[in-house]
Amino acid sequence: MMNYRMTSYILGSIAVITAGLMLIPFLMTFGYGEDLSSTALGFGVTIAILLAAGIPFIVKKPKNTHITSSCGFVTVALAWILMSIAGALPLCISRVIPNFIDCIFEMVSGFTTTGATIMTNIDAAPKSILFWRSMTHWIGGMGILVFVVALLPKTGPAIVHLMKAEVPGPEFGKLVSKLRFTARILYCIYLALTVLQVIFLVASPKMDLYDAVVFSMSTAGTGGFSNRGISVAYYDSVYIDVVITVFMMLFAANFNVFYFILIGRVSAALRSEEFRTMFIIFGVATLLMTVSLTVYDIYDNFWESLRYAAFQAASVMSTTGFATADFNTWPTLCHVVLLALMFIGGSAGSTAGGLKVSRIVIGAKSAVAGVRKVYSPRGVFPVKLDGRPLSDELRTSVGHYFIGYFLVTVISLVLISLAEVDSVGLVENFSAVATCINNVGPGLGSFGPMYSFAHLTGFSKIVLSFTMLMGRLEIIPILLLFYPKAWSKA
Amino acid sequence: MMNYRMTSYILGSIAVITAGLMLIPFLMTFGYGEDLSSTALGFGVTIAILLAAGIPFIVKKPKNTHITSSCGFVTVALAWILMSIAGALPLCISRVIPNFIDCIFEMVSGFTTTGATIMTNIDAAPKSILFWRSMTHWIGGMGILVFVVALLPKTGPAIVHLMKAEVPGPEFGKLVSKLRFTARILYCIYLALTVLQVIFLVASPKMDLYDAVVFSMSTAGTGGFSNRGISVAYYDSVYIDVVITVFMMLFAANFNVFYFILIGRVSAALRSEEFRTMFIIFGVATLLMTVSLTVYDIYDNFWESLRYAAFQAASVMSTTGFATADFNTWPTLCHVVLLALMFIGGSAGSTAGGLKVSRIVIGAKSAVAGVRKVYSPRGVFPVKLDGRPLSDELRTSVGHYFIGYFLVTVISLVLISLAEVDSVGLVENFSAVATCINNVGPGLGSFGPMYSFAHLTGFSKIVLSFTMLMGRLEIIPILLLFYPKAWSKA
Repeated sequence: MMNYRMTSYILGSIAVITAGLMLIPFLMTFGYGEDLSSTALGFGVTIAILLAAGIPFIVKKPKNTHITSSCGFVTVALAWILMSIAGALPLCISRVIPNFIDCIFEMVSGFTTTGATIMTNIDAAPKSILFWRSMTHWIGGMGILVFVVALLPKTGPAIVHLMKAEVPGPEFGKLVSKLRFTARILYCIYLALTVLQVIFLVASPKMDLYDAVVFSMSTAGTGGFSNRGISVAYYDSVYIDVVITVFMMLFAANFNVFYFILIGRVSAALRSEEFRTMFIIFGVATLLMTVSLTVYDIYDNFWESLRYAAFQAASVMSTTGFATADFNTWPTLCHVVLLALMFIGGSAGSTAGGLKVSRIVIGAKSAVAGVRKVYSPRGVFPVKLDGRPLSDELRTSVGHYFIGYFLVTVISLVLISLAEVDSVGLVENFSAVATCINNVGPGLGSFGPMYSFAHLTGFSKIVLSFTMLMGRLEIIPILLLFYPKAWSKA
Repeated sequence: MMNYRMTSYILGSIAVITAGLMLIPFLMTFGYGEDLSSTALGFGVTIAILLAAGIPFIVKKPKNTHITSSCGFVTVALAWILMSIAGALPLCISRVIPNFIDCIFEMVSGFTTTGATIMTNIDAAPKSILFWRSMTHWIGGMGILVFVVALLPKTGPAIVHLMKAEVPGPEFGKLVSKLRFTARILYCIYLALTVLQVIFLVASPKMDLYDAVVFSMSTAGTGGFSNRGISVAYYDSVYIDVVITVFMMLFAANFNVFYFILIGRVSAALRSEEFRTMFIIFGVATLLMTVSLTVYDIYDNFWESLRYAAFQAASVMSTTGFATADFNTWPTLCHVVLLALMFIGGSAGSTAGGLKVSRIVIGAKSAVAGVRKVYSPRGVFPVKLDGRPLSDELRTSVGHYFIGYFLVTVISLVLISLAEVDSVGLVENFSAVATCINNVGPGLGSFGPMYSFAHLTGFSKIVLSFTMLMGRLEIIPILLLFYPKAWSKA
């Protein structure tokens, strides 16, 4: 059941916070001397609307701050839709993207950290708009509700449902007993790592501070938007490739790992099964693709192949979606590996998308336990993660998540195949759905890293927007929006 | 643990039964006046080997007939491998298929009722060999172990593990309390339906008795081999298309439905949720494809589109794999629908492959229950099938099966993409794996219904043979073969 007073309070806060964040690109429009009647107007008008709409709801704190888990889920879904619309207004008002559906697609893609774009001439777009696009990645990566929890005054323990709905993974692990404190720690680590990446990137003579900040924000959110139409390939620098590869993998790791390192428990951090499995999968994928690229003589030598393969494996596994090469031209084996990595995704509790490594580990272990059960029907085979046995409930929910993910993928694929009558084929459509549900960004063929989603019909853009939101919020919050009972007051 | 005496007794019986069944094509070689030094020699030598190898193991019935479930599973896996090798010998000795790996692939494809072929000039092959190929579908469809249970003298209740491993679906439902009786009923229904189809087919002037029997055996096993290189398209007859469409759907239904009809409980039969869901899915798929074919003007009119769409939907959903058209030229939406149908497959307790409709129903209902659980955390949402609540254990095992299926698909795809360096792309490879694990037969592109699997490397043929066996025996029996503990004597 819903606590509408509390929901509107939270949504009002988000409107005001979004307005505040939008001040940065708004001020940039002046700094870079952009056309006042275009981008400055777009951001200015949007900020005014958000403040006017948001402030009335937050002047008085609600008396009853209690929310149920389903109310939390619905609120989170509404918050993400609200943000996407708010974020789309400047793009539309400034006429940088004339079509409103395109603006919505671009912003859903931004906040969900997908990075699929409908813009076709990125290099010519105003700097403030490109900055805002990458900023949406940074905001959406850690989650706007987590931000709200970190900022707002104490609102009671029920707020845990907001973070549960927004932080990805099969389990929600509080770092410390106080939730607000957890949210602040998460954002501090997030900010610190982002700043660290900016420092590493400006160290390269090929990047100025603007480029470095844009690319760092996109890496941190594992998004993929940038100010370069051909992505990281623009710089053609081994140093930049290596820095971004390393940071993509760092941001795909569970932030608990960094917290443990922060409080000095380094060995506990490195013992994490998910953390180690992620790097093993990354290593195997990189190796397979490197061998394949070498066999086919795509690049000059083994080291070049390794460089491009490692970057692309990190980019797709972390679901960032940056590219240093047009992997459309790579051998089929690489496409298989990349599609598999898309669905595996990063770690729970990170900014990455996909099914998450921990779910894959739990799923695989459950399946093995199932086989052993056939061998010894009376045996008991508990499934453990990090040495701790998992509840049956959690294992069942992981199973349900696989089924739900599979269904969303198939339904999206059928819907866009219905709409795209001129489409060239199944792999392209499938890759578009896969890249959206897993929040990666580029797909194969005409959705490849050097192309855009502009050629899709409006219907498909709306379907894929929902697919991206389903991927980012892990299906249930979006489904609850269509469940009438979830809206009831009591 | 294994009861080796009992396992060898069962395998011996299977060798002798296979020899007996092979008498039919052996005698045909004389009837059709085929080259004595080729096919007659092939079948004759194989029969002699099978009898010589099998009889010593069955002269004395084992004292201890008890087998554990894991022993049953390993025995079933060994039986299927033994049959495939035995069935491959005549093809190889007769030099109709010179390469032994090709022969094995063809026979695994036959017994698992996949119907993927490596033969490129089918119309020119000897009649006895083509008959044998379709006969393997008929034997493999209902299962050789079920046949053994039906034929052999009473061997104790432990034999249930053999049928459990071979009859597809999440649950194994005995029709009557006596297992041997159940097996006989199943085979009687199976034979009766097959004969009925033969009668319907010979009624067409375009088919002689030989053609009718070959096509009926392949339909009954939902296999797809035939004596025509271009499959059912050869006849270009609306009547034949309709008859085969209807029978393909009948053989994809749970045989319990026919048993209930047989004992007069027609309404109970038609109330089966799986039965109704299967026809709903079939209807929706046919509709989607018909609309798509009409929009694209592929055929002359709506009715023609309906005819080809319905046939192909039935063919792929029942995992038969017959074709009346080269669906490679159909629009992308049709490819999406066909691939989805491949994975859904037919009903549990039928001769069809795929995940099975009942697993899809259980999976979808479990996922819905999971969503409702989020809305009301303290609520209890039992998942029911046909009004009967399902145990948690069964639901968990369905979840594991999805995961296992997904893993087998991905691993097979990576392995064949590694081997097929000249492959033209991802859809083709994926379609080859999908068609094999789901025991359908034709895939897309160069694996399409009018082509063959001949161009694959030997390595890929072996991988796909295992994939087909995993699909037919539902993974676990084949996995147990590689689990050393399953081979221990105590």
